[in-house]
Amino acid sequence: MQTSIACCEGGVTAAKGFMAGGSACGIKKKGALDLALIFAEAPAVAAGVFTKNRIKGHSLKLTQSRIGGGGIKAVAINSGNANACLGPQGDRDASGMAEIAALALGVRPEEVLVASTGVIGQRLDLALIDAGMANALAALGKDGTVAAKAIMTTDTFAKEAAVTCELPSGRTVRIGGMAKGSGMIHPNMATLLGFLTTDASVAPDALQQALYLATEVSFNAVSVDGDTSPCDSVILLANGMAGGPVISLDSPDFNLFLEALTRVTQTLAKMIALDGEGATKLIAISVRGADSADTARRIGRAVAVSPLVKTAFYGADANWGRILSAIGNAGAAFDPDTVAIKLGGALVCQNGCAVAFAEEETRRILESKEIAVQIELGSGPGEAMVWTCDLSPEYVRINGSYRS
Amino acid sequence: MQTSIACCEGGVTAAKGFMAGGSACGIKKKGALDLALIFAEAPAVAAGVFTKNRIKGHSLKLTQSRIGGGGIKAVAINSGNANACLGPQGDRDASGMAEIAALALGVRPEEVLVASTGVIGQRLDLALIDAGMANALAALGKDGTVAAKAIMTTDTFAKEAAVTCELPSGRTVRIGGMAKGSGMIHPNMATLLGFLTTDASVAPDALQQALYLATEVSFNAVSVDGDTSPCDSVILLANGMAGGPVISLDSPDFNLFLEALTRVTQTLAKMIALDGEGATKLIAISVRGADSADTARRIGRAVAVSPLVKTAFYGADANWGRILSAIGNAGAAFDPDTVAIKLGGALVCQNGCAVAFAEEETRRILESKEIAVQIELGSGPGEAMVWTCDLSPEYVRINGSYRS
Repeated sequence: MQTSIACCEGGVTAAKGFMAGGSACGIKKKGALDLALIFAEAPAVAAGVFTKNRIKGHSLKLTQSRIGGGGIKAVAINSGNANACLGPQGDRDASGMAEIAALALGVRPEEVLVASTGVIGQRLDLALIDAGMANALAALGKDGTVAAKAIMTTDTFAKEAAVTCELPSGRTVRIGGMAKGSGMIHPNMATLLGFLTTDASVAPDALQQALYLATEVSFNAVSVDGDTSPCDSVILLANGMAGGPVISLDSPDFNLFLEALTRVTQTLAKMIALDGEGATKLIAISVRGADSADTARRIGRAVAVSPLVKTAFYGADANWGRILSAIGNAGAAFDPDTVAIKLGGALVCQNGCAVAFAEEETRRILESKEIAVQIELGSGPGEAMVWTCDLSPEYVRINGSYRS
Repeated sequence: MQTSIACCEGGVTAAKGFMAGGSACGIKKKGALDLALIFAEAPAVAAGVFTKNRIKGHSLKLTQSRIGGGGIKAVAINSGNANACLGPQGDRDASGMAEIAALALGVRPEEVLVASTGVIGQRLDLALIDAGMANALAALGKDGTVAAKAIMTTDTFAKEAAVTCELPSGRTVRIGGMAKGSGMIHPNMATLLGFLTTDASVAPDALQQALYLATEVSFNAVSVDGDTSPCDSVILLANGMAGGPVISLDSPDFNLFLEALTRVTQTLAKMIALDGEGATKLIAISVRGADSADTARRIGRAVAVSPLVKTAFYGADANWGRILSAIGNAGAAFDPDTVAIKLGGALVCQNGCAVAFAEEETRRILESKEIAVQIELGSGPGEAMVWTCDLSPEYVRINGSYRS
């Protein structure tokens, strides 16, 4: 079945019947793009996965209340301001942003979803959004890149991915998306925003389930710094414009649709890890041989979040003792005496002990842009993949003065 | 009762009947001190608290097996090598180190405890320890500073503290100690070593309970980077040389002894936070109004371990949104709408929302060497203190090349 999924050009507008645009409305300094708009030509079914942080942003809460059914026509997103921790005013501003977008697009406010990312605790300036909406509307079209740029905060590149997929029922559907990182990135969402669209026709519960499963092994398997934010949201819109019968949870098309969606979310998730604040390397951690997938995931996350592991990767230092120590720190059950660790394919630890390895060759491996860390626990069938990045002095520089 | 405890000069040798020494045996490069010795003139009762990391160092395991009763005469400690993850050879080397110290001191090997800290997975060179033991022995005396320096790894200063305490029963006892940090520091131990001595006479179970309780609110309330190590140990020796009846769990002296011990461990713990790798500031986080002390501790730790919070403190940025977000990320129950946050006494967040505050004045507060963060949750009687440091580019520099 693998062969019937193919990567294609584009992002959030790759699917039929979706347009996007963006503008610089002035929330960010220096005229950077900060307002994005997604428009669905036909009303879309919407699914969403949201932060597990107990502090939730006002824009997120409004979107959460509008998700789960059909009839969604647009998403308005601002960067530079999180619209979080502002009390009832924040809720009013979230509704206000939806109203501004609705008025511009000629749809009803409740057909609009909103998202915000940026500094916490500063009031969102709706006058700026109002003034910038006309330009975002004028930019609306099949090029999704302006929108992908407008949702960025400290990201250094726009993140877009798309696939086409021929389903068992014979229809060809497209799934595309855009995402932003790049600090506060951790399993269970972080300042992560992801917007996905498809022209497949999908039932609300099937769409929600597919998004949940695809997110678990992609956006929720990425860690940049262990922090999560009040604004993290991944939204998936399905407008059905590819035609054909509705994909339900038990329809034969569901599994391939999920696989195609996962291809898009994993591609975006890896881009987020690679573009982690100050990151110079992508670290792909595979954990195998755990007693369960949950244990494997917990161990992978403990390694991904360890500052000592991440600084060692920054320094191209084959300090596998830190990896082993982070595994031991995961609060998960495993046998220390059966652990093996490979860095870029080179065995550095076996049976929980040091193994003689070629330091120079390993250093060369660790100087590459993408490093595979393989952890074999030797005690069961559980496995998981987790992506992270190294920790560089640049991370500190970026975050020491984020508000300034 | 507070007034009967007083700080005094010295550290691990402040108590009657304890001597210490150290030497440079060659495990560390460049002739740095790396071998420490503590000697008890009278056999001591020993208590210990050890790492919760599932990976445990060989020296730690040997010491753990010898703790809990009396008859301890000495502790030998090396820095520069963790003696961890080396299989049966590591266990043999831990025993070998105890034998070398025993031979030099004229005591039996089982009367010697050992500890190791440094790089994981490299074999400990016993020939170096053997050769260096004579110098450590020759240095043995009432000056504890050489030993305090010899246990350091990336610490920038030696950490010593001591108190005298007049107990309700009329005796005066002394408690002193030394400790080292300064990376992999996190609640539940980290590469933290602490060695405490007292001339009080204490029953084994009372000594263990006192050490456990004092550690919970000091060494286990410090976080530098969220990592823990396989070697973390805190050891307390009581040689009874101050005379008087034995302090038991229900003796009237126990509470004041515990308070005096806690004074020493908290002083050392704060030094560890202040000397965290690359740290420029000590951050003292108090959490009040939680539904339980456990919730308060969990929330304090979540804030202490957040890289985004720590980098903001480095940059003197009053980014309280990150603190609130870290609280929300703690996995603990609280009401987001009743949270208040003060930075250096200045209110920056109330009812979970932004409060207008004097940016310039707050920045000046955040530029000081020690910063108080007060978190008031407004929902119960639970409270806790946690200490951490800021995260600077220097942390990355140190850890990017630790093995080199």
